Amino acid sequence: MTLPVAIGIDIGGTNLKIALVDGGGRIIAKRARPLDAARGPGSALAEAGDLVGRLLAEAGLKRGDAVGAGVGSPGPLDLRTGVIIRSVNLPGWRNVRIQASLADRLGLPVVLDNDANAAAYGEFWVGAGREGGDLVMLTLGTGVGAGVILDGCVLHGHFDNAAELGHMIVVVDGLPCPCGQRGCLEQYASASAVSRRVEAAIRGGEESRLGATVKKGEGIDARVVAEEAAAGDELCLRIWNEACTYLAIACVNIQHAYNPGIIVLGGGMSEAGSFLIDRVDEQLRRRTWSLCEDLPTVKRADLAYDAGVIGAAGLAWRRSRSIGQ
Amino acid sequence: MTLPVAIGIDIGGTNLKIALVDGGGRIIAKRARPLDAARGPGSALAEAGDLVGRLLAEAGLKRGDAVGAGVGSPGPLDLRTGVIIRSVNLPGWRNVRIQASLADRLGLPVVLDNDANAAAYGEFWVGAGREGGDLVMLTLGTGVGAGVILDGCVLHGHFDNAAELGHMIVVVDGLPCPCGQRGCLEQYASASAVSRRVEAAIRGGEESRLGATVKKGEGIDARVVAEEAAAGDELCLRIWNEACTYLAIACVNIQHAYNPGIIVLGGGMSEAGSFLIDRVDEQLRRRTWSLCEDLPTVKRADLAYDAGVIGAAGLAWRRSRSIGQ
Repeated sequence: MTLPVAIGIDIGGTNLKIALVDGGGRIIAKRARPLDAARGPGSALAEAGDLVGRLLAEAGLKRGDAVGAGVGSPGPLDLRTGVIIRSVNLPGWRNVRIQASLADRLGLPVVLDNDANAAAYGEFWVGAGREGGDLVMLTLGTGVGAGVILDGCVLHGHFDNAAELGHMIVVVDGLPCPCGQRGCLEQYASASAVSRRVEAAIRGGEESRLGATVKKGEGIDARVVAEEAAAGDELCLRIWNEACTYLAIACVNIQHAYNPGIIVLGGGMSEAGSFLIDRVDEQLRRRTWSLCEDLPTVKRADLAYDAGVIGAAGLAWRRSRSIGQ
Repeated sequence: MTLPVAIGIDIGGTNLKIALVDGGGRIIAKRARPLDAARGPGSALAEAGDLVGRLLAEAGLKRGDAVGAGVGSPGPLDLRTGVIIRSVNLPGWRNVRIQASLADRLGLPVVLDNDANAAAYGEFWVGAGREGGDLVMLTLGTGVGAGVILDGCVLHGHFDNAAELGHMIVVVDGLPCPCGQRGCLEQYASASAVSRRVEAAIRGGEESRLGATVKKGEGIDARVVAEEAAAGDELCLRIWNEACTYLAIACVNIQHAYNPGIIVLGGGMSEAGSFLIDRVDEQLRRRTWSLCEDLPTVKRADLAYDAGVIGAAGLAWRRSRSIGQ
């Protein structure tokens, strides 16, 4: 007897990831390939179809053993029509009918959602939030992605664009963001923002152990900043702590907006583990209200870079089960 | 034939308001009485039972003509047990079993919710949001109350305390709030905050046409500040515009958090009409992102001070209909 699976597809700016996931959220098989967004969506769709076929064959499964596929994609998306409207991470992709095209190609029902929503659903289903309750996830990577799960459902809102928490304004008239706003959370507390702010300070003349690296024009990342901060580099520690403070402010606002049981932090910055989580949690406790005890638990993501494919597959599982009811 | 009604009860810090509301959200009869919170919840409950009896009798209705009662109360509340945990506006009230006590007294099913949630539900049901879609309401009064309606349901969250948007932090390390936080929205953009900030500036030596009034120790309110701002008083205009700017920042954050179709502004400040709404809307358009078109419509509340009783009755109607299904 072969187990039924759902197919999880994670479309990223640089990678296409596909996994077969069983009904308990376990990955049966997975594969990633570089995605050249510039070659257009047709090429990526063909690649996805090809990869799914191979994975099923290697696992000894037939197409009929799959209950459906879930796709996590950068947005904005139109969920009613299953279309990628456009994306800063997928240059040139405009009004891509991803859901219908994949459904045709795979011969399976396809559910589409935002990549950060899919990751949040993965953590809710079998990751850091698996013990239940409403959950908010922030993915601290190039930007700050976010997903909100309320009563077991992904929050979409009236325009399908809810939970864009990376664009919560945390500093009035603050740093400009490519989105057109000023003072967005992701200008202070994404992995990219942290390394960018350290680089800018060094170029502005501040001392740091990363000075030589930056002046040679070599790139640094949030992991290196966290390591140097932990080792006592003052500049790195200041920028890291500022990021943690803004994340704590965001957590206070998330607490009062959705009142979730848990806030999950994932993405590149979360690789710092307790050096991130403990600092955010300490600032959250210091900055939240004392009116009542409704503090969410801040946890590190459990599923690392598989949250997206697992969550996308989870959404396909959820769809198949709700239809089965 | 007598129409069935639901009973809406709005418990305020200074007033108890009760209305009989038909299935279309129309008030059949209503009555308000001063509430002396210091006399304790027992006295208020007796008063409520008495008022309900009188209203029904005057309308020629029997208890059996009522489908149930809804209560909007200041919180924090425990919605599972129907208890007012405590409230800054109801001093001395602690762990009041309001739902069970009222159900006993009235002989009717009772549903309890936060006063701001009830008002938001009223505006969603038959007020500014009646044309449908997700809605967020901010009530700009003594503080900033808020309610969020998603897919026709009041958002409660894991701890029953969602949508406390008056305590969204809009200024890191900003003005202290009695809740224990700093920089809460309601320190900048409630009706009380606006008059308090004008008073403080005058006492600090700033010029204003309200100078003499304040120096005599006479109170001013947000209505007077709005009038003087509209008439060109520089101090009043500056404080009013700052409040509008912080409300716009809050609207941007609400847009990205819930992505609602509509944001309703009610409470004392909303009496200024377009002098509030147009300014908030202009700042919102200036400060929101350009990535996609998902701007919520900002509207003035429709139901004025009846939103609470109508919404509370609406929640009772909703409960009776869902049980009837």
